[in-house]
Parts: sequence; C-alpha cells; structure tokens
Amino acid sequence: MFQIDVNCDLGESFGAYRIGLDEDILEFVTSANIACGFHAGDPGVMRKTAALAAEKGVKIGAHPGLPDLQGFGRRPIAISPDEAYDMTIYQIGALSGFLKAEGISMQHVKPHGALYNMAAIDHKLSEAIAKAVYRFDPELILFGLAGSELIKAGEQIGLQTASEVFADRTYQADGTLTPRSQPDALIQDDSKAVKQVIQMVKDGTVTSQQGQAVRLQADTVCIHGDGAHALTFAKTIRKELQAAGIHISALAQN
Amino acid sequence: MFQIDVNCDLGESFGAYRIGLDEDILEFVTSANIACGFHAGDPGVMRKTAALAAEKGVKIGAHPGLPDLQGFGRRPIAISPDEAYDMTIYQIGALSGFLKAEGISMQHVKPHGALYNMAAIDHKLSEAIAKAVYRFDPELILFGLAGSELIKAGEQIGLQTASEVFADRTYQADGTLTPRSQPDALIQDDSKAVKQVIQMVKDGTVTSQQGQAVRLQADTVCIHGDGAHALTFAKTIRKELQAAGIHISALAQN
Amino acid sequence: MFQIDVNCDLGESFGAYRIGLDEDILEFVTSANIACGFHAGDPGVMRKTAALAAEKGVKIGAHPGLPDLQGFGRRPIAISPDEAYDMTIYQIGALSGFLKAEGISMQHVKPHGALYNMAAIDHKLSEAIAKAVYRFDPELILFGLAGSELIKAGEQIGLQTASEVFADRTYQADGTLTPRSQPDALIQDDSKAVKQVIQMVKDGTVTSQQGQAVRLQADTVCIHGDGAHALTFAKTIRKELQAAGIHISALAQN
Amino acid sequence: MFQIDVNCDLGESFGAYRIGLDEDILEFVTSANIACGFHAGDPGVMRKTAALAAEKGVKIGAHPGLPDLQGFGRRPIAISPDEAYDMTIYQIGALSGFLKAEGISMQHVKPHGALYNMAAIDHKLSEAIAKAVYRFDPELILFGLAGSELIKAGEQIGLQTASEVFADRTYQADGTLTPRSQPDALIQDDSKAVKQVIQMVKDGTVTSQQGQAVRLQADTVCIHGDGAHALTFAKTIRKELQAAGIHISALAQN
Repeated sequence: MFQIDVNCDLGESFGAYRIGLDEDILEFVTSANIACGFHAGDPGVMRKTAALAAEKGVKIGAHPGLPDLQGFGRRPIAISPDEAYDMTIYQIGALSGFLKAEGISMQHVKPHGALYNMAAIDHKLSEAIAKAVYRFDPELILFGLAGSELIKAGEQIGLQTASEVFADRTYQADGTLTPRSQPDALIQDDSKAVKQVIQMVKDGTVTSQQGQAVRLQADTVCIHGDGAHALTFAKTIRKELQAAGIHISALAQN
Repeated sequence: MFQIDVNCDLGESFGAYRIGLDEDILEFVTSANIACGFHAGDPGVMRKTAALAAEKGVKIGAHPGLPDLQGFGRRPIAISPDEAYDMTIYQIGALSGFLKAEGISMQHVKPHGALYNMAAIDHKLSEAIAKAVYRFDPELILFGLAGSELIKAGEQIGLQTASEVFADRTYQADGTLTPRSQPDALIQDDSKAVKQVIQMVKDGTVTSQQGQAVRLQADTVCIHGDGAHALTFAKTIRKELQAAGIHISALAQN
Repeated sequence: MFQIDVNCDLGESFGAYRIGLDEDILEFVTSANIACGFHAGDPGVMRKTAALAAEKGVKIGAHPGLPDLQGFGRRPIAISPDEAYDMTIYQIGALSGFLKAEGISMQHVKPHGALYNMAAIDHKLSEAIAKAVYRFDPELILFGLAGSELIKAGEQIGLQTASEVFADRTYQADGTLTPRSQPDALIQDDSKAVKQVIQMVKDGTVTSQQGQAVRLQADTVCIHGDGAHALTFAKTIRKELQAAGIHISALAQN
Repeated sequence: MFQIDVNCDLGESFGAYRIGLDEDILEFVTSANIACGFHAGDPGVMRKTAALAAEKGVKIGAHPGLPDLQGFGRRPIAISPDEAYDMTIYQIGALSGFLKAEGISMQHVKPHGALYNMAAIDHKLSEAIAKAVYRFDPELILFGLAGSELIKAGEQIGLQTASEVFADRTYQADGTLTPRSQPDALIQDDSKAVKQVIQMVKDGTVTSQQGQAVRLQADTVCIHGDGAHALTFAKTIRKELQAAGIHISALAQN
C-alpha cells in the first residue's frame, strides 16, 4: 500500500502580525510543524495552534528555527553545532510545554528555513540537531529533506526519520532541490506538481531537470499554508493522491 | 527540627555578557533558579548552568521572567493573565528541554523580578502563573513571596508552595517588603540579616520597620549570586544558620 | 479659515509580516507617522515608507514606541524618564537617517501606543520626550493628545505642538478619551465620527459622553491605516471636512 | 611626518550587562567606535558613551553591526546588500541622534565584527555600506580593513577612508589577516605587536607569516577595550609609537 504524510508550517503569526490560514489548512494536512518563537510564532500563538491542531486530529511537530524574526529564519546564520543543539532543545522544550499542559503528544521535529537547508548539507550541524531531538525524546520522528545529511544523522543516532519531498519544487540530478535563485526552481502548474508527488510515492523516483529518474524516499510532502493559492492546492493534492490510491496518513501510530 | 532552603538566581549570562559567580555560589545553595531566556540567560547558558547545578547536587527551578532583556525583567510590563500563562509555560518548557536531555528533574518554579513582584499583589496574574505551573507538572513547587497572592494561588490550585523570605530586605507591618525606593529597604549589616532569617525560621516572625513581630512563613531564603560580597555572605549565612541548629536542605525529596 | 491636518500611523510591517494599506492610505493623509523599529517597522520598511510618503507629498514624522514588538508597543512598560529620553532620541535618529539619505525633511514626532498614553498623563515622562525632541531638533512639531501633559511639556520647552483628536473615539467630561475597556469608547457610525471632528475644528469643542461641550484644541486628526474600513473612512472624512469648509493641510510650512 | 589614529570599540554594554573599560581606555585612543544597539549597546549606553568620549576629546564613529546581540555580531548572517544598506543607515542615524542632541560631530563609521569581515571580501556588500555612509553624510570617514573591498568601495563612491591595521594579528602573503582558526593568528608578545605597527606606519609594509614584506596602508590601528591586558597594552603602544616618532592623532580635522 502506498502512503504519504502531508505536512504544513503553522503557527507563524507573531503578536499583532498574522501569517497563514492555519485553521483552514489544518483540514487538509496530517502533520503540523509549529513555529517555536525564534523565527516566527509567540507563546500565545503556539498554545492556540497546538490546541487547534490537536482538536482537528492533526499530529504536531516542533519547527525550530534560527533566532531571526526579521528574516523569518530564512537567512543563514553561521552558528556552531553546539548552538544548533542548544537552540533545538530550547525550542522543542518550549513547544512541549504547551503540549504537556494540554495532554497532547509531540510526533516530530522539523527544522525551519535556513536551519533546515544548512543542516541538509552540513553533517556536523545535522548531528547536533539529531542529537538534540534524540536526547529530548528518542521516540520523536525527525523530518528532513529526502537524501539529506539530516536524514542520515537521524538514522545514525537511532531516530525514526521522515524523508520530506516538495510538490512545487524541481530537483537536480543529484537529488537536491533546484536553488530558488534559478528560474526553473518552482513548478507553477498544479497538475505537474501533483504528478511529481505521485511518481515519488509510487515509483520512489523524481525526474530531475536534467531528465533522469533519480531515486528518492518520500515519507512526507510539504504544502504551503499561506497565500491565496494554498487552500486550493491543498484540496487538489489530497484529492489527486487519494484518487491515485495513495493513503494520506501521519507517521506516528499513537 | 528547623529547616530552610537556600536559593539563588543563576544562569543570567547572555551571549558574550557575563553576570554572576554561578560556579562558586552553587557551593552554598540548595536550590538554583535558572533564567529561561526572556529577561536573562540563553540556550547555551541554560544547558551549562543546569548541568553544573545537577553536578553539585543543587535542585533546579525555572526562573521565568518578562520578555525584557534590556531591563533585566525588572520593569513591570502590563501583560494580561493569558500572556503570563503563556510565557510561563514557554519558559518552563524551554528549561525542561535541557533537563530532559540530561536526565535531571525540575524541582520548582520561581517567577523573576517584576513578574514576581506583580504576581505578589495581583490575584489574576498569580492564578495564571500557578495554573501554568500546575498544568505543566502538578509536582512542581511554586516559589513566591511569603504571604503573597502567588503563594495563595499556588495553594488554591493544589501546588506545593515555598514561601520565600529575604535576608537583606526589611519588612513592613503588613508583611510586605519595604520598597527599594525607601532608604531603609536594605539591611547592610550581615549579622542583622542573618539574625532576621534565624528569627523567621525559628519563631515564624519578622520584626517590621514599625517594630511589631509579624507572622511569616519561611521555607526558602534568597541570596545573591553576583557582586563582590555575594560569596562572603553566602558562606556566613550557611554557617550561622547551621550554628543556630537550622538544617539547610532543598524542598524536594527526590 | 478652518484647517486641520490628517495623520496616520504607517510603516508598521516587519520582515515577512505585513500590516497596513500604506500605499493607499497615503492618498488621503497629510502627515505620516512612521514606526521606528521598536514596536513595529524595520530598517527596510522605514526606508520604503519614507520614500513613498515623500513621493506623495505627505509630511513625515517619527513614531517612536516602547521596545515591545510582540505587544505592538501597546503594553505599558514602567520605564524611567531617562529611558524614555534615550529611546525617543534613538528612534528619531534612526528614522532621520533614512530621511537624510533621501534629502527629505522631518516634520514631527508622535509617540506611539502605550508611550503616547503614558506620556499623556505623566508629566516627567512627557518632559523627557519633549526634551528629546527639542534637543534633536527644536523645529520639530510634537504631536500629542489634545489637553495632555505631552502637549504641555512640549509648549513648556518651546516646541511647536499639534493637539491630536480622534474621530472614532468618545470623550469624557474632563477632555480625556473614554477608555477602550468601556462599551461606549468607540464611535461606530462614520457620520457621527465626522461630525465630531467638524465640531472640534469649527467650535473648538467636543460633546462628552456626559453631554457637556468640552473645550478642545484640534490641530490634527488621527485615522487608521489598516482594516477593511480604513480606506472608506479616510475618503469620507476628507470629503466631508472639505465640504464643511475645512482646509486639510499638514502643519509644517516647508 | 608619520602619523596614526588609535581606535577602540566602545559602548558595548547592554542593560544590566557590562563589557569594556570604556572610561579608562578613552584616555589612550583618538577615535571611538560606538556600538549602535544591534550587536551591542543600548540607547542609554550610546548616550553616555558619546558624552564621555566627547568630554575626553576623542573623535566618535558609529559602529554598526549585524542584528545579533546573542552572537555579539560575530556570526555571519547572509544579508542582502539592501539589508546591509538599511541597517547601516538605521544605526548611523540612531547614534547621530545622540550626537545631534549633544552638539557633537561624527567622524567616522566602522562596521563591526562579521559585518566588517563580510564586507572586507564582498564587493556588493561593501558598496551598499559605503553608499549608506555617503548618502547619510559624504564627509564621514569610512574605516575598513587595509586593502579590503570596503576601502575600495569607499574610495569609489568618494568617501575619505581610513585603512585599519591590527597590532596583535598576523598577516598572510596576500595582505589578509591570518584566520583566528589558525594557531598563529594572534601575536601574544606585546613588543612584537608594537614593532609590527611601527613597521606598518613607517615602511608601509607588514611581514607576512610567509616571510615577505607586504605593502599595506596604515591609517588607524585597532586596540581592545576589554580584558585585563587592554589598558596595559594601550599604554605601551601609545608610548612606543610616540618614542618611534609617530604622531598619534584622529583623522578628522574639525
């Protein structure tokens, strides 16, 4: 049986600032990555988002990021592995506070933005993040880019991992994402995006921009939670994946 | 048997900025209140301070504060009870992340600075903080000013509380601390300060600036962890309390 | 001849977070209060907002606030007059950097949110703010609540002041705004709001909730720059004021 | 006549956190780089440091840094040239607020830490910083690493520049500093450090770790303002430079 998890970044509002259609998008996803206050989110937003996700039966993960609210965690910061370890523990712990208070369990951890991208190619950083997750709770699932150093580090330390794929991003021959700086980085056509995911799940491959079928593990697919198009695409991909005989389900059994 | 806990605020350094003689003062205290990153402390400082305290057998508490690093959490901010609840959960959770990763248990929670003082006289704020502590973990001990709203709120919700007294602060007839704005707020003479604590523990009273003996519960006494005089006073009070037959011990049994 | 300035808070976006219909609302105002990075705004937003306002011929003012992005500067913080002086200078200076770089002049300074409200009733705070403005540039116009301590402090130090009135807020017999906590604080009916401003400008009075005509100076009226209704009301009040023979104009001559 | 400016980073305290022997070190320097609140410093510290420097006749410069208090501005952040421009203007403007209020003039701008190092090798970043300085005030002197992209960008746009050299750092054959990660990066011996500066000023060369004499412009030498050794070295280098016939003087004539 074919199966995939659908995840989305949520809880990105901050104080008076609103981002994301959290309540609506929760209808379409099985895993929610909740920002933890460093790149987005604040304590009140975290509490409300966690409660909302739990209410809708969506599994919850911590979404730790770099300490850069102004840059939304998207600007690489040259942190040491120790700093990565510490900021991961801090943020997972903070979110777990709200979950503990509400009796909700945490399913996974997915680093955000530049931390995610840096970890994808930096083994030492990935080791530090994987160690933070493992030492906090070895039952947590580590989400990372399919084929990345983060997935390797997670497996090495003994964590369950979830290889993440992207519906609307193109891939290179080595299995990496086409950098956003290149004109062909994004897949604008929804049906193409959906087809790419179906191929990833059923064949375990993606067709690179160079034309080859590249092997790729697809445990979870990331969809967007803001922008006018987000809800439409969320509906479409769910429907199409199911029509293709792919079961949509979170990763944790509990 | 007479007994008291000796607590101190620790882990107040931030990045390149150093405050406090943490390593030295840990020799003299039984409970450490560790800053959680809002008014002081950062993730790395939290990890190191927790490990150091555990190594020395000192019980650990979370020391949540207002989000005001520049003001060191000492400037009252008009937050709502919901905001107090959320920032307490967030900070307790963040510290618990490091404790969980190290297999250390948390003994208590003590609000810091302006949050502590605001909670002492504001019932709704105290309720929110007590609820945050209770919902995070009902086994935690809530530290608050002896006779304050925070102690009442803690008892009401079912938490074990620890009434905190101060060695070097004078008291008013109603059991409150003399405001720092007044010239007689501080006790400069160490032997007077020690005597005040001995009276608090043995007689359950403090002699107010107006001359009356005021009833007061003394479960834990706060000492300072920075300044040239801190270590000397820490040594003195320990020795004198023990000489007076008072057992110095943390509050948690485990 | 009757005359009034129409001002609006602008430049409140931050990083990836958007607030306000800045470009649209600039068509309807004569003075723009630009956030300076403490309660809202960031360096890039400040530069762009200043350029946009200048392009549209709208006069520019600094809108310094409390250092509380999460609370949007709306939560009172117990700062000292010295701290108020310092944060006012810092923020005016920062905005003036962008103006200097673009060859644009600064017309005024209007404190934001809780700083504005605290200054309205606290003479020492008002003195500190007025002194900061005066020492930075004695030609700046200080905006404050009509009848407030801030206006008094500004006049005392020798600044030109602009007494600010609100279209959609009700007033008390002593000339203060009805607190937002009361049900009748807001005027929901646009035509009532407009009539209130016309009376303020033409008669120099406002009718309090208690029914009396209270004397009031009206140099500038504040309108909102966000929310679905903002643009509609901006259009309406402009049209109606002009129809009533009131000239809408900024305060600075240059 | 041989001449050099001696500069030092100052005003790096923040809130309750103290760094640096500002008052003492000001006796030995001719130019002070004042932190502007992003990587260190706060509005009150900026005001006091500027006043202190002016009182001692030391020329003042803005010391803008990356928005990273926790990392003290030493961790590279991948900012765009536009962001560099904006944060430079913002910080220069903020410091100029205090100088304007006190009637003190600004002599120079020197980027801090990672911003300085990134600008040294990134032409686009340097152009943005130089443009920010020039547009704020074309009379300002831009301080940068001798031989760096920042010096080139400053000259290109028409700014007076000051090529900075380091007494206690070793140099490579291409004129760059030996990275701190290498064991021979620092010169521990004071007399060697002083000799290096004398050679730089008198011969216009530095002897690289590879043994060659490398051409180098030395307009200003940076000394440290914190640490036990700072004052001793400051005294020594001043005395030795003067004994070698080198005049110590700030760069601005006014």
